Amino acid sequence: MNEFSIIDKYFSWNCDNSVRVGVGDDCAVIELDSEYQIVTSVDTLIEGVHFSSSNSAADIAYKSLSVNLSDLAAMGAIAKYFTLAISLPRVDEKWLSEFANSLKQIANKYNIDLVGGDTTKGHLSITINVTGFIERGKSLLRSGAKPGDLIFVSNNIGDAAYALRQKQRNEPATLSAMNRLNTPEPRLSLGRSLVGIANSCIDISDGLEQDLSHILNSSKVGARISTDRLPLSKEVSEYIESTGDWCIALAGGDDYELCFSVDKRNKKNVHQIESDLKIKLSEIGVITPNGGLIVDGFSADCSSYRHF
Amino acid sequence: MNEFSIIDKYFSWNCDNSVRVGVGDDCAVIELDSEYQIVTSVDTLIEGVHFSSSNSAADIAYKSLSVNLSDLAAMGAIAKYFTLAISLPRVDEKWLSEFANSLKQIANKYNIDLVGGDTTKGHLSITINVTGFIERGKSLLRSGAKPGDLIFVSNNIGDAAYALRQKQRNEPATLSAMNRLNTPEPRLSLGRSLVGIANSCIDISDGLEQDLSHILNSSKVGARISTDRLPLSKEVSEYIESTGDWCIALAGGDDYELCFSVDKRNKKNVHQIESDLKIKLSEIGVITPNGGLIVDGFSADCSSYRHF
Repeated sequence: MNEFSIIDKYFSWNCDNSVRVGVGDDCAVIELDSEYQIVTSVDTLIEGVHFSSSNSAADIAYKSLSVNLSDLAAMGAIAKYFTLAISLPRVDEKWLSEFANSLKQIANKYNIDLVGGDTTKGHLSITINVTGFIERGKSLLRSGAKPGDLIFVSNNIGDAAYALRQKQRNEPATLSAMNRLNTPEPRLSLGRSLVGIANSCIDISDGLEQDLSHILNSSKVGARISTDRLPLSKEVSEYIESTGDWCIALAGGDDYELCFSVDKRNKKNVHQIESDLKIKLSEIGVITPNGGLIVDGFSADCSSYRHF
Repeated sequence: MNEFSIIDKYFSWNCDNSVRVGVGDDCAVIELDSEYQIVTSVDTLIEGVHFSSSNSAADIAYKSLSVNLSDLAAMGAIAKYFTLAISLPRVDEKWLSEFANSLKQIANKYNIDLVGGDTTKGHLSITINVTGFIERGKSLLRSGAKPGDLIFVSNNIGDAAYALRQKQRNEPATLSAMNRLNTPEPRLSLGRSLVGIANSCIDISDGLEQDLSHILNSSKVGARISTDRLPLSKEVSEYIESTGDWCIALAGGDDYELCFSVDKRNKKNVHQIESDLKIKLSEIGVITPNGGLIVDGFSADCSSYRHF
């Protein structure tokens, strides 16, 4: 099977109305209303680095698109379309079919169209470039945090790193924690709801400390957060209690939750969003004029903490 | 050096006015005027498949962007921005610096901005996703060829395949042929000039027969072309004369010239473009109502011809 037949067979499905030409010409053509701007991001996932050879094709597809959608979520954008460049060691029709079905499923779930692709022979690697639209000038940037802003985090953090730790040690983790690692949910609805509310936003892919630090550096501010306010699942909470390893929540990556800052006058809006979207939003600290990131309750250095 | 510092050091440069947020946030943000549509395409180049380990970092960068720009050219689009996903076996600062400088040079030459990237550790591979803009509904598609259309090809074809053949046999080729292989020029100005003139267009990446066949299949037409009209450089012409190997011109890929069809009433416009852009445009045949692709002057089958 050559490149053309792989794309035709597995990666051609119907696109929404804004896609004028999809897979099958030199380029795809997409319509954009004039009140919007284009928002775009690219991420590569490589076997042995971002996922292991024991991961299913379905999970690999899910995570590959999900982590890219998470970047759109962090901008407050509406997901529109993506391109897929996939490198495969061999043509395995069962694997490809499982991969394509899962990709289609998450694409449909988040209403995003596959508009172009390239397949090559090589070590298994998936590069996805996602594009979304945002109302002009409204994107949630890393650079907008202001002193006095309250810092929030969605859902729980540390579950993905905990699940990976358990997997690497052949110790049990709950299905819920494994799902957080293998099929993370991009927070697109939350990102959209934060447009006009949040002053800054980022998705937690490299760990809370590192990603929050990106906001602090871009915004030229500091922050003070507190470990006792970090939102943790029961099993991560118990693990930290028995080991003292706060780094799993502070520096464990792959959570794909949103970390954002809001002016304190918008606190009630955050509670409204929490109730509307039925997602836990925890206030973990405050933006300070300067001084870097201070973590109350844990003073050790997590900077050498790497989950892969 | 980690991913952030590689991007900061090598791949952050100034963007044009339509780029509101470049490298350094979760996504890039790009402005689009309402009279345009978005045109996008992705291509991966892998060491050992699309280029060899003897290619310079500068040539690899040049070709990686060039072959993607060629897809925009084939649509008639204005190049606007691209993302880069690069996988590297190790951080070699000399190599990276040479790669980045060359990439910047071709990006500046064709007025396209780098807006996002991802670096990973792995076998050397470069995935570029280019995006351009096109006046609404004006893109040059593969599906628009009509019976009676004249078929044209830009510049010469076969040089890249000839250069590769010589290189693989350790035989000499002219610098001009080697440049066609290693640093092909995307025909962006030609593509723009063909908007409103050509009925169909494609870039020749996989070889004339195969790429013209994409037009024929998409347009549900046939074509009759003639070997004695194929535009050839002196050295490729002499090579064919001595070997009879027409497949080098018919099926040798990597030319990145444009193949397009125009209504015969537009023939004078093609000659005007030829003179304005100072690029040779050769009439090689005609679109027929059906019957697949007929090549007068050469009856052998090039379908097994693969240059890599």
